[in-house]
Amino acid sequence: MSHNTFGHLFRVTTFGESHGKALGCVVDGCPPMIPLEEADIQGFLDKRRPGQSRFTTQRQEPDAVKILSGVFIDEASGKQVTTGTPIALMIENVDQRSKDYSDIKDKFRPGHADFTYEAKYGIRDYRGGGRSSARETAARVAAGAIARKVVAGVCVRGALVQVGPHKIDRSRWDWDEVDRNPFFCPDPVAAQEWEKYLDGIRKAGSSIGAVIEIVAENVPAGWGAPIYAKLDSEIAGALMTINAVKGVEIGAGFASAELTGEENADELRMGNDGKPLFLSNNAGGILGGISTGQPVVARFAVKPTSSILTPRRTIDRAGHEADILTKGRHDPCVGIRAVPVGEAMVACVLADQFMRHRGQVG
Amino acid sequence: MSHNTFGHLFRVTTFGESHGKALGCVVDGCPPMIPLEEADIQGFLDKRRPGQSRFTTQRQEPDAVKILSGVFIDEASGKQVTTGTPIALMIENVDQRSKDYSDIKDKFRPGHADFTYEAKYGIRDYRGGGRSSARETAARVAAGAIARKVVAGVCVRGALVQVGPHKIDRSRWDWDEVDRNPFFCPDPVAAQEWEKYLDGIRKAGSSIGAVIEIVAENVPAGWGAPIYAKLDSEIAGALMTINAVKGVEIGAGFASAELTGEENADELRMGNDGKPLFLSNNAGGILGGISTGQPVVARFAVKPTSSILTPRRTIDRAGHEADILTKGRHDPCVGIRAVPVGEAMVACVLADQFMRHRGQVG
Amino acid sequence: MSHNTFGHLFRVTTFGESHGKALGCVVDGCPPMIPLEEADIQGFLDKRRPGQSRFTTQRQEPDAVKILSGVFIDEASGKQVTTGTPIALMIENVDQRSKDYSDIKDKFRPGHADFTYEAKYGIRDYRGGGRSSARETAARVAAGAIARKVVAGVCVRGALVQVGPHKIDRSRWDWDEVDRNPFFCPDPVAAQEWEKYLDGIRKAGSSIGAVIEIVAENVPAGWGAPIYAKLDSEIAGALMTINAVKGVEIGAGFASAELTGEENADELRMGNDGKPLFLSNNAGGILGGISTGQPVVARFAVKPTSSILTPRRTIDRAGHEADILTKGRHDPCVGIRAVPVGEAMVACVLADQFMRHRGQVG
Amino acid sequence: MSHNTFGHLFRVTTFGESHGKALGCVVDGCPPMIPLEEADIQGFLDKRRPGQSRFTTQRQEPDAVKILSGVFIDEASGKQVTTGTPIALMIENVDQRSKDYSDIKDKFRPGHADFTYEAKYGIRDYRGGGRSSARETAARVAAGAIARKVVAGVCVRGALVQVGPHKIDRSRWDWDEVDRNPFFCPDPVAAQEWEKYLDGIRKAGSSIGAVIEIVAENVPAGWGAPIYAKLDSEIAGALMTINAVKGVEIGAGFASAELTGEENADELRMGNDGKPLFLSNNAGGILGGISTGQPVVARFAVKPTSSILTPRRTIDRAGHEADILTKGRHDPCVGIRAVPVGEAMVACVLADQFMRHRGQVG
Repeated sequence: MSHNTFGHLFRVTTFGESHGKALGCVVDGCPPMIPLEEADIQGFLDKRRPGQSRFTTQRQEPDAVKILSGVFIDEASGKQVTTGTPIALMIENVDQRSKDYSDIKDKFRPGHADFTYEAKYGIRDYRGGGRSSARETAARVAAGAIARKVVAGVCVRGALVQVGPHKIDRSRWDWDEVDRNPFFCPDPVAAQEWEKYLDGIRKAGSSIGAVIEIVAENVPAGWGAPIYAKLDSEIAGALMTINAVKGVEIGAGFASAELTGEENADELRMGNDGKPLFLSNNAGGILGGISTGQPVVARFAVKPTSSILTPRRTIDRAGHEADILTKGRHDPCVGIRAVPVGEAMVACVLADQFMRHRGQVG
Repeated sequence: MSHNTFGHLFRVTTFGESHGKALGCVVDGCPPMIPLEEADIQGFLDKRRPGQSRFTTQRQEPDAVKILSGVFIDEASGKQVTTGTPIALMIENVDQRSKDYSDIKDKFRPGHADFTYEAKYGIRDYRGGGRSSARETAARVAAGAIARKVVAGVCVRGALVQVGPHKIDRSRWDWDEVDRNPFFCPDPVAAQEWEKYLDGIRKAGSSIGAVIEIVAENVPAGWGAPIYAKLDSEIAGALMTINAVKGVEIGAGFASAELTGEENADELRMGNDGKPLFLSNNAGGILGGISTGQPVVARFAVKPTSSILTPRRTIDRAGHEADILTKGRHDPCVGIRAVPVGEAMVACVLADQFMRHRGQVG
Repeated sequence: MSHNTFGHLFRVTTFGESHGKALGCVVDGCPPMIPLEEADIQGFLDKRRPGQSRFTTQRQEPDAVKILSGVFIDEASGKQVTTGTPIALMIENVDQRSKDYSDIKDKFRPGHADFTYEAKYGIRDYRGGGRSSARETAARVAAGAIARKVVAGVCVRGALVQVGPHKIDRSRWDWDEVDRNPFFCPDPVAAQEWEKYLDGIRKAGSSIGAVIEIVAENVPAGWGAPIYAKLDSEIAGALMTINAVKGVEIGAGFASAELTGEENADELRMGNDGKPLFLSNNAGGILGGISTGQPVVARFAVKPTSSILTPRRTIDRAGHEADILTKGRHDPCVGIRAVPVGEAMVACVLADQFMRHRGQVG
Repeated sequence: MSHNTFGHLFRVTTFGESHGKALGCVVDGCPPMIPLEEADIQGFLDKRRPGQSRFTTQRQEPDAVKILSGVFIDEASGKQVTTGTPIALMIENVDQRSKDYSDIKDKFRPGHADFTYEAKYGIRDYRGGGRSSARETAARVAAGAIARKVVAGVCVRGALVQVGPHKIDRSRWDWDEVDRNPFFCPDPVAAQEWEKYLDGIRKAGSSIGAVIEIVAENVPAGWGAPIYAKLDSEIAGALMTINAVKGVEIGAGFASAELTGEENADELRMGNDGKPLFLSNNAGGILGGISTGQPVVARFAVKPTSSILTPRRTIDRAGHEADILTKGRHDPCVGIRAVPVGEAMVACVLADQFMRHRGQVG
């Protein structure tokens, strides 16, 4: 991973600021002959799009994606397909209200990247957080839609499993439920509780953290690589690049610190289909950095957005002490919209690892 | 990160198997004129070296490092210094008892990388885990010793903060204590408790997980990069490449999921030294992927080693079901020796980010 | 270099096809606080722009560049400057006459990439050569305009030194002359001769090859790197990525095969300015892959464009034999417009090597 | 390419100085299950080894290679095979006569990298040229031996085609002849002439340049990539990393500057085997950066070694003017030993491009 690019063979380079002309990405290295329409991407963007419920920012962005390059009509099928050349995707910004940010241009919002961008570069586009805005993640979701097609047999899904102190009951996990509530919550009972809880947070002008779980099913055994290209390392690194993420775990994760070797070991038997069958999945589908054939399971923690209505102490660019409260339009729980972003990042890592595996092993 | 190399400007490529002739690494891109003797590296290797207490594997490896290239005598100072060319480091393997592994060469040990290496490559060096052995981490520790010299003003230290269910009391944290017990434990009371607890684990032929905390002090504000080269992403990815690691977190980490925006925000004032002062460090020293100037704080969870004396169910290469118990010489808590490895990985990431920052911003 | 990206710290990723919606690039890693307007880039694009004389293709493309991201107004200076984040540049295609290409969509034009793209990907955007069109080089020229600002003290200039069998007389070399004729020719006498010669080529519907020389002055001693990142290797690799380039040489180049050690050695004395002075420059400003402080001199040979009016024998996608002649609008000497492209590539390599040098050595 | 590493999926990192303890490389990403013994590598090293005729340096180095890692016995075949993990290769230096260099430690030899290494790093291992010595190329030849096995169907061969002003007669080209003379010369008549000519150069303590041609047969159509990973660009870049190389060309190369479009176009017919047949090969087997299926043909020019017995003017580290002549043991025509090195570099590029192609396209 290198600044604004990630991936080795399936490579994604993103660009754009929250309130600039446009944002987007270049997806390089995509295999040819994959059917691809803007509509294939738009569906995933719509899941991430703001303003869809009262629990996310009220900014109104259509997030309409344009494919600028890398596709052509295949005469045989009549379908638009990838050509193997770079696929440039662009999303124009529409609903910038830059004046909302004018009074914070000289102050560093606690918990935001204002201070660090300034410390690094000596300048920052303060409008809407500029490059550090979660708006950049739209480009990832778009790239992820293509990645999914590269590993078409794999199913990558995500769900919100914790909001503040409120966790789901995993015995009620229902993937269909995820699309029925505004939280990507797989537990219908928790979804109802969260609604009340988040209304309280929202009305108080506060915000709250969350935990997201991403599951990738039908990943064949053998993807990944030893040592510095471990599948779990690349997933962890990729999820940690998402705005506000402060922790990542695979399989049993931090809980494995409390397990004995006997408890932790995922025993093996032969399955009825003649394939190896693991009797548990503490490994989260990855051993030695390489996929086992079980579902790949990753979780990540998202901190509460730092844009809140309660004044906080800070300093300004001149070093004077000040108080700040962030008006603008913000997500009371930024973790909600992180679900499709996490899916996209895992899909991109898998597409890249699949291609690298194929490159080395055939 | 790409297979067996990590870093961009400060690049480390490791090689070697547990029971092969030698293991080592090539450190490429190191700045010139840095004093470097084998003894500078050996001290860190000795911290990681096996067989130093009854709580780590009894394999006896001197882990003596040889510098094969990349250094020369500076006439002015009379010291051996780096020349800017690749520094190759080699550690010969001495105490291989490969016969210990002969009865597991056809069986997949649950929780180990046996199955996945076989699934990926169709072959594996089963002796001592081959390339997937934690012995590879000696090369990282050696590279980390050089990295520390590249960022000489930064202090990178680690400690074991949890063994199984037993956490330290953070109010008793004493860095000096870390070197006084065989666990790198900063809490003298916990160290005593762990001794009894781990004796029980060891005598039972069992194993247990752990959590390690790494703290890097005096990192200037401004290191790191937006988006896909975030400092936290690279630290997370790097720590997740260490054997048996299942989770990584930065600052408040997973706990931030339960925080409100008010609680999480690290407020800012001006310090007495005229520098910005953060009033808390939930961010773990990183905002927007860029260092804040506060201590960088990362934690990682290590699962229990899967080499235990209790038989576990498994299959063999031919697909037959079998039971397996792993004799050999193993760590009852592999998390202990992960402390110097975690330090080394963080040091390497910081050295690389420092050089990249200097490259872009000057 | 990796598919559609080049550079390490100063990284350029290009996208787009000849007849697609748009082409462009993302320049990642650019230092912050560099003044940058679209006009700064447009001037260089205008040098490469088609349709400016009868000796280049008559396609009418304004090649108007838009900066989509990565810049912001610096309050102190009131100027628009780079922010250190990715700079996306877009050039919309305007004058596509795709019907010109309809009768070649199933035939492979000899000397073109038609056959190889088809062999690799199973599909190609045949309109105007698609991704293999020299139109892609507009994006490089745009990136090069930014690179020049990164190494502002360095002067990168290019000239056409040979067209077909007609070479310039180097004793008449005058940089000012380069802008006075449509060939970027530094020799006014040769320029006049070429005009007649190329009129003949053009009227015959033929084409001819050329040699371009790029000179970079004021490159400090010490840029570049040993072995696989040699400055000459990166320049050679970069120039060889330009469409139709078949050879690259540095300094004395191929002529050095005929030199003795005595003739080839660039002797050293102290200059009047107290700096080392080389008495000749057979090395082309590079020794051991590292700049000497002398002008960096590279030359590259461009083959004649393969789009000619004389029918050539070929096959079609179905394997049937056929004849083909290429109508459309083409350059009789594609080497002419390669001059600004060669300058841009050398500028980009130098910017990247400067930043990497600063990263390693400070 | 990045400092001391090249390749993307088939990656080679070299280390070592001319008079250090050892030199070698790590070959990472090699496919598994490829039979590999030290003897497979040694044969190629022996071709490059010094001291084999009076026309190369008289340094006596056995260049015995040791495989330190990355191989294991395959039970089914009983053969030692690659495992997919890093293959570390080491060659110990034996015949260092460092005192030969003591009087040049403070003087910059014209044409050598002495001045530039010093300018870059402030220090250099002057013994035998240190890292800039052609001895580093032994590691490339070793890596190339492995690369050849990765693309086992491809035949990569090289020959010396020009020494000073004396070119071969291509009508006498005989590959078998290459192994029958000490010059890798495919023309038996030229070989005899060169013997006399080079004896004169040698006795005069002088040196002379040369041109080498590398031919890779049976490369399938479709390897390579558009734009910045063009096969010709990577070959050019790789050959230009070899010590003393000042020019590289593909197919017709610089001569294509003088060709018309009609002359240059390689026409196509269907071959008797039902495959496309090119009627000429001006393209050198590459169009649009992608292989055509014809032989890949590259040539590179090597300057005369700068170590000669005639005194040359120079300066020393303190800036004083001085004269220098280089005793030591040197190659009168360093181009001779560049033949196996050029072969190795082309083999490595092809192995890497093959794997990347397989990764993207399958």
